[in-house]
Amino acid sequence: MNKKMIIKTIGRILLVEAFLLCFPLIISLIYRESLKNVFAFLITIIILLVIGGLFSSIKVKKRNFYAKEGLVIVALIWILLSFFGGLPLYFSREYKSLVDTFFEISSGFTTTGASVATNVEGLSHSILFWRSFTHLIGGMGVLVFALAIMPQINEDSIYLMKAEVPGPVFGKLVSKMGDTARILYAIYLVMTVVLIFLLWIAGMPFFDSMLHAFGTAGTGGFGIKNTSVAFYNNPLVEHIIAWGMLIFGVNFNLYYFILIGKIKDFFKNEELKWYIGIMFFAVFLIMANVYFMYPNISENFRNVFFTVSSVMTTTGYSTADFNNWPLFSHIILLILMFIGGCAGSTAGGIKVARVATSLKSSLSEIKRVRNPKQVVTARFDGKVLDNQILKSLSNYYFIYIFLFIFLMLIVSFDTPDFISAFSSVAATFNNIGPGLGMVGPSSSYAELSNISKVALSFGMIAGRLEILPIMILFSIGTWKKA
Amino acid sequence: MNKKMIIKTIGRILLVEAFLLCFPLIISLIYRESLKNVFAFLITIIILLVIGGLFSSIKVKKRNFYAKEGLVIVALIWILLSFFGGLPLYFSREYKSLVDTFFEISSGFTTTGASVATNVEGLSHSILFWRSFTHLIGGMGVLVFALAIMPQINEDSIYLMKAEVPGPVFGKLVSKMGDTARILYAIYLVMTVVLIFLLWIAGMPFFDSMLHAFGTAGTGGFGIKNTSVAFYNNPLVEHIIAWGMLIFGVNFNLYYFILIGKIKDFFKNEELKWYIGIMFFAVFLIMANVYFMYPNISENFRNVFFTVSSVMTTTGYSTADFNNWPLFSHIILLILMFIGGCAGSTAGGIKVARVATSLKSSLSEIKRVRNPKQVVTARFDGKVLDNQILKSLSNYYFIYIFLFIFLMLIVSFDTPDFISAFSSVAATFNNIGPGLGMVGPSSSYAELSNISKVALSFGMIAGRLEILPIMILFSIGTWKKA
Repeated sequence: MNKKMIIKTIGRILLVEAFLLCFPLIISLIYRESLKNVFAFLITIIILLVIGGLFSSIKVKKRNFYAKEGLVIVALIWILLSFFGGLPLYFSREYKSLVDTFFEISSGFTTTGASVATNVEGLSHSILFWRSFTHLIGGMGVLVFALAIMPQINEDSIYLMKAEVPGPVFGKLVSKMGDTARILYAIYLVMTVVLIFLLWIAGMPFFDSMLHAFGTAGTGGFGIKNTSVAFYNNPLVEHIIAWGMLIFGVNFNLYYFILIGKIKDFFKNEELKWYIGIMFFAVFLIMANVYFMYPNISENFRNVFFTVSSVMTTTGYSTADFNNWPLFSHIILLILMFIGGCAGSTAGGIKVARVATSLKSSLSEIKRVRNPKQVVTARFDGKVLDNQILKSLSNYYFIYIFLFIFLMLIVSFDTPDFISAFSSVAATFNNIGPGLGMVGPSSSYAELSNISKVALSFGMIAGRLEILPIMILFSIGTWKKA
Repeated sequence: MNKKMIIKTIGRILLVEAFLLCFPLIISLIYRESLKNVFAFLITIIILLVIGGLFSSIKVKKRNFYAKEGLVIVALIWILLSFFGGLPLYFSREYKSLVDTFFEISSGFTTTGASVATNVEGLSHSILFWRSFTHLIGGMGVLVFALAIMPQINEDSIYLMKAEVPGPVFGKLVSKMGDTARILYAIYLVMTVVLIFLLWIAGMPFFDSMLHAFGTAGTGGFGIKNTSVAFYNNPLVEHIIAWGMLIFGVNFNLYYFILIGKIKDFFKNEELKWYIGIMFFAVFLIMANVYFMYPNISENFRNVFFTVSSVMTTTGYSTADFNNWPLFSHIILLILMFIGGCAGSTAGGIKVARVATSLKSSLSEIKRVRNPKQVVTARFDGKVLDNQILKSLSNYYFIYIFLFIFLMLIVSFDTPDFISAFSSVAATFNNIGPGLGMVGPSSSYAELSNISKVALSFGMIAGRLEILPIMILFSIGTWKKA
C-alpha cells in the first residue's frame, strides 16, 4: 500500500474542493446574504486549504499506484469530500448536525438527491446553489474533474478514473488520460449550459434554471421547491427536463463519437438501443395503465414520460403525483429504479449494460440446453460474453444484494413498514433520491436516526462508486502488510 | 425431439398417479364419507387409467432421450399431475373451479402449501389426506418415486432425476439410477414414519399426526386447522415439527452417508454447516429482537425456532403470530424465504449451496483485487468454483429475477399493495405457502383472479423444478424442428 501517495492525492483533491466552494461563496455575495453564510463558506475553504496544503506537500518516493490503491483513494476522497462539503451547511446553521450535512452532501456528490431538509424553500441561495453544484461535479466525477484541470497527470490515474466512472467497462477516448477527462468534461459542461439556456427561455427564473440544469445534468434531483418541478406548472419546462434527463443518462463516450463525426458508432451502440427500448416500453405500459387518469393523451404522455425518465435515469425529480398510480405502474417504476441509466453516464442504478448482458446470457443458456450440439455464444455490443465477464457480473450482483440487505436491516429499526425500509435503501443505493412511504417524495429523510443516516450516506457513496471501492476500503485485509 | 418417448413416459406417470389416488380413496371408505367423495376419486382414477394406458401403450422406436427431452417431460408431468390430481377436489364439489383445484394440487406437489381453501376445517378427510399426501410425494419427487417403483429403468432417466431433484448439483449414490431412487425413498419414508409416531406419542390424533408428518417431510405446510399448528397448543408437538422441518431440509444424500457408516462425510459437508449456521444465526438475531415479547427464554426460543425453521425450509407452518414481530425480524424471515433449504432436500428457495457459493465467490473477488499478484481460488465443499459454475449461477439468478418480476406484474392487478404482490410471488415461487398482507397466514389465495392463480401455479412448479424445465417447455425454439 503506497500510503504516502494516497495522502498526497487526497490533499490535492481537497484543494480542488476549496476551489469549487468559491462558486457558492460568490453566490452568497451576489445575493448579499448574511455574514453567517459568507463565513460558513470562507471558513470551510480555509480548513480545506490548510489540510489540503499539508497533505499535498508530502514527499513521495514511489509515485505509481495500482488498482487497490486507486480504489482506496477514490473511496476515501468521496467520503472526505462529502464530509468537508457539508461543513458550510453546518456553519450556516441551516442544517442541524454534522450527520445531516454529511448525508446531504453525500447525496449531492453521488447525484442521489435524497434530502434531510424539511423545508428547502427556507434555505438560502448559496446553500441551494452548493447542493445542486455538487450534483454537477459528482455526476461526471470529482476525480475526472481534477484530472481535467490538473496540469500534471500521472498515467496511473486510469485506475482512479476507472473506479469513478459508472459502469462495468471504461474506455479511454484518446491515448492520454488527461485529454480524455478534458473532452468528457467539455461535452458535459457545454450540454449543461445549453440546458440552462433552454430552461430560462422556457420561462424559469435564471437561478432556478441553473440549479435545475445542474440537477438534470448530474441526474441528481435536488429540488429547490417543496413540490419539486411541479411547482413551475410549466409543460415546456417539464418536457425540457424530461428529455434532458434522458440525454444525460446516455454514455458520454457516445457524444464524443458524434463530435468527431462517427455518427454510425453512436447509433450502433447496443446499450443505447436497450436504454431507449426499455424506457419507451415502460412509458407505453404505464401510459396504458393510467390512461383514464388524464384528460388527454399529451398530458398522459408528458406526466408518464417525465416520471419514467426521472426514475430510470435515477434523477428523482417529480411532477405527477405517482403515488396515486396503480400498483402495476409502481412495480414498473421500481424495476426501472434498479436498472438505472447507461454505463459512463451520470445516472446510477445497476446500469443498462449489466442488465442487458445478463438477460442475453440467460437466454443463451436456454438455447444451449435446447441445442446441446450447437455452439451458442452470447454477445453484447459485438463482444463475446466470456465466462470471466459473467463471473464478475455474478459477483457484482451478489455483493449488491448483500449490501442492500445489510443496509435494510439497519434502517429497519427506524422505519414503520417494509416499503419504507426497502425503498429508502433502493432510493439511496441506486442514487435516485425520494423513496416511498416514510421517505416518499412529499417527505424527507430527516426522521431517520443518525445511524441510519450515516449508513445510507455510505450506501449512496457505495452505489455511486459501484460498491467495490467501499468494500475494499472497509475490508481489513486491505490494510495488512503483505 | 423424441415426442413418442415423451408421451409414453407421461402415460406411465399418469398410471402411477392413479395408483397414488387409491390411498385417499381408501381413507374415504374408512371414514364412510358420502358417495360423492368416493366417486370423485374413482372417476379420476378411471380417467387416469384410460389416458395413462393409451399413452403408455404407444410404440416407440428410439427409447433414449437427452437433457432437452428430460426437461420437457418433467415440466409436462408436473403440470399434468397437478391438473389431474385436482380433479377429485373438483368432483367432490369441495372446491369451486378447476383453476382452484389446479392451484391447490400444484401447491401440494410442489410442497408450497399455499391454499385457496377459505375454511380447511370444512374439508373432508379424504380430501385433506390427498392434499397432504401430494406433499409427501412431491417432496422427494414424483419421478423419483416412479423410478423407485418401476421395474424397467432406462439409464437415461438420470436426466429426469437431475431435473426433479432440487439444487445445482445431483450425485448418484450408487451406480444404478433405480437403486439410487429406491434408497432415497426408503430413507425418506422411514423418517416420515418415525415422525408420525413421534407426533402421535406427543398427543396428536393419529390422522392429524400422519398429515402433519407428510407436510413436514415434504416441507409443504398444508394445515388442516384454520390456525395451523397453533391449534394444538402443544409445545412438544411444536418442538417435534420444528426439528423435523430442519432435518428434512438437509440433503438426503447425507443421510445415506450415515446409513453406510460414513459419518465423517456427513459432518464434513459444507452446505450443511452453512445451513445450520444461517438457521441458528437467524434464530439468535430474532430471539434478541423479540426478547421482551415472551415471558421466558424457552418460550422465546420455541416460537422463534419454529418460525425460522418453517420459513427457511419453506414449509410454511405457523404457531407464533409473527405479524406482531418488529420489522427487523420480518426482514430476516424474508431473507430466509429466499435462501431456502439444502440442495437435494425437500425444501424450496434458492438453496443454501447457491447462496454460499455466491458469497464465497464474491469475497474472493475482493481478495483478488486486494492482492493482484496472488492466485485466489474460491472453493465450495472442496471443489474449485470455476467460471463455468459461476456463469450458470449468474444465469440462474437472472432468470429467477426475471420470472419473479413477470409474475409480480401479473398479480399486481389483483393485490391492493406492494407487500401483497411481492410476498404472494415470493411465497409461491420459493414454495413456502403463506405470504403477507392479502395472502397472509390468516387468509388465503382465494381472492385472486383466475389469471393470477394460474400464473402462480406455474410459478410454484417453476420454483420447484428450479425454473429451467418450465422455461424450456415454453420457449418456442424447443418445438421447432432441428
